[in-house]
Amino acid sequence: MSSKEQFIKVFDELVVELRQILTDYKMPAEAIEWYERSLNYNTPGGKLNRGLSVVDTYCILTNQKVTDLDVETYKKVAVLGWCIELLQGFFLVSDDIMDQSKTRRGQPCWYLVEGIGNIAINDSFMLEGAIYVLLKKYFKKDSYYVDLLELFHDVTFQTELGQLLDLTTADEEVVDLDKFSLEKHSFIVIFKTAYYSFYLPVALAMFVAGISDEKDLKQAEDILVPLGEYFQIQDDYLDCFGTPEQIGKIGTDIKDNKCSWVVNQALKLVTPEQRQVLEENYGRKDDVKEAKCKQLFNDLGIEAIYQEYEESIVGELKGKIEAINESSGLKKQVFYTFLNKIYKRSK
Amino acid sequence: MSSKEQFIKVFDELVVELRQILTDYKMPAEAIEWYERSLNYNTPGGKLNRGLSVVDTYCILTNQKVTDLDVETYKKVAVLGWCIELLQGFFLVSDDIMDQSKTRRGQPCWYLVEGIGNIAINDSFMLEGAIYVLLKKYFKKDSYYVDLLELFHDVTFQTELGQLLDLTTADEEVVDLDKFSLEKHSFIVIFKTAYYSFYLPVALAMFVAGISDEKDLKQAEDILVPLGEYFQIQDDYLDCFGTPEQIGKIGTDIKDNKCSWVVNQALKLVTPEQRQVLEENYGRKDDVKEAKCKQLFNDLGIEAIYQEYEESIVGELKGKIEAINESSGLKKQVFYTFLNKIYKRSK
Repeated sequence: MSSKEQFIKVFDELVVELRQILTDYKMPAEAIEWYERSLNYNTPGGKLNRGLSVVDTYCILTNQKVTDLDVETYKKVAVLGWCIELLQGFFLVSDDIMDQSKTRRGQPCWYLVEGIGNIAINDSFMLEGAIYVLLKKYFKKDSYYVDLLELFHDVTFQTELGQLLDLTTADEEVVDLDKFSLEKHSFIVIFKTAYYSFYLPVALAMFVAGISDEKDLKQAEDILVPLGEYFQIQDDYLDCFGTPEQIGKIGTDIKDNKCSWVVNQALKLVTPEQRQVLEENYGRKDDVKEAKCKQLFNDLGIEAIYQEYEESIVGELKGKIEAINESSGLKKQVFYTFLNKIYKRSK
Repeated sequence: MSSKEQFIKVFDELVVELRQILTDYKMPAEAIEWYERSLNYNTPGGKLNRGLSVVDTYCILTNQKVTDLDVETYKKVAVLGWCIELLQGFFLVSDDIMDQSKTRRGQPCWYLVEGIGNIAINDSFMLEGAIYVLLKKYFKKDSYYVDLLELFHDVTFQTELGQLLDLTTADEEVVDLDKFSLEKHSFIVIFKTAYYSFYLPVALAMFVAGISDEKDLKQAEDILVPLGEYFQIQDDYLDCFGTPEQIGKIGTDIKDNKCSWVVNQALKLVTPEQRQVLEENYGRKDDVKEAKCKQLFNDLGIEAIYQEYEESIVGELKGKIEAINESSGLKKQVFYTFLNKIYKRSK
């Protein structure tokens, strides 16, 4: 069984356990089935990078292979991984409604499934709710229980802050490039993505491993937050400059009026005439206008600027990782593992 | 200053403190203002019964007048009251989207306010998020901090369960009386209303007062949950049989196909012919059809059944209150205060 299969097996167990909680509340069968369906539709199905990285990080921190972990320990660490995937499910289900998206992970968005509609909003709440049901069941007796609760609260709130800024900055209907800036882009990606995708899995594994001094958590945050920002900038770059074969989809950021790193970088460099080209062509559902934006990005040399940025941030991150004080048990390898998955990736 | 004015003053302070949290995160001013506007639009404005009852209950439990509380204690208890109002704000903002309601507390629903739209979903999350920001700020050092967190998690999840069952039982578009039953009605009102409106404020006050043995909490729950159910049944009754002068609004449960106590009671008593009348007339936006339902409810003697129910449940509740063991500090008066506010109320 691959480590991903083993991880998914835990989810199936958790669905049974969550069903049981609702049964204990004497919920009618139809509501239990509804919840089970929402859990299965909205939680697995992605790449599970965030969830799996809790398990991987814990193994690195404790010098063990996944196969060496005893059953109880594996389950606890995997539960935390699934709590991140549930948090992500909560965000994705609701984001899709707010953005009026059509598909997610190759299937219709949950709110567009026959008979679901706006009940999806409450379903998203119940994905978040499952996190605290599971944390209570598996960690109530651990000394770091309250730390886990606070970490999830903090990161959830930070992600919501990022989402707020994103929603109020990039309206799909009204293009207003004055609202964009590299500073705002940085804030949005750090809050909306970096905290829950990069800092959260490592911090969770650190608590379970007992390596959770404030100093150690700060070291991790200081590396993982800019690493997450780099990941998202790369994502924005690939959306525009990656081929469909490379990235496995067709980029739509230009047409969708996204506050992307690419357009923000361009806005920093444009002449008034070039800005006019962007004003007239960015954020329109039109192939010719999209091509005009891409031409402008080429004229401005955005690709080269990205390559420079990438080399510079990777150098900076390597420097920070090398400077880590490993005396309390924190390991450089945790961070190299993340960095190596991102650097020069094509999808 | 009335005790309600004093309570509202605390909210104004909390808004300043929440603004500061966002400022510390270096959020742009426009996002801070957006959050402040959402907090002010969606949190006060109701009757504040739930929030105020935390303060009142704490005073009864500790034998003090509100005016006797020292500043710090008053603030802490009021913060818990506002946490319930924030929780309610989270539910109401999102319920209004799910139900496609038009007005709330005499003003347009938040999602219908110019420029808000579906961003209201994220705004509702950030009302919930404020609860945990405030609990951390005011209670982190208290021995019962984790109890408060768990209580909010549990009650939030219970309310979401009630909402799920409500949404999947009563579809405004498709009338299906087979889905209704008194058992389901009981479950919906207990989970969707009783826990957060009646049990939560008392349990919170009990934790602060240090009267929080499992046994005491159980005694409170065993009274407050049926009391909350009685409150909601009364609400359903008044929606149909109260005059607009009595209840301050025009009841719309029949037209809205609500899974109300009244229709469930009727369904228990109808002949096949009378059931046909309901099938053809319940849940239609039509004055004549609504009047036919009301006539049927009169024919079935629902008013008298309600009066019997009310006398019986009030007797039962009084019996339970009288049986309370006050030795650990719990007070019968807490429960009589709630009961007296509800019994024979007309609005």
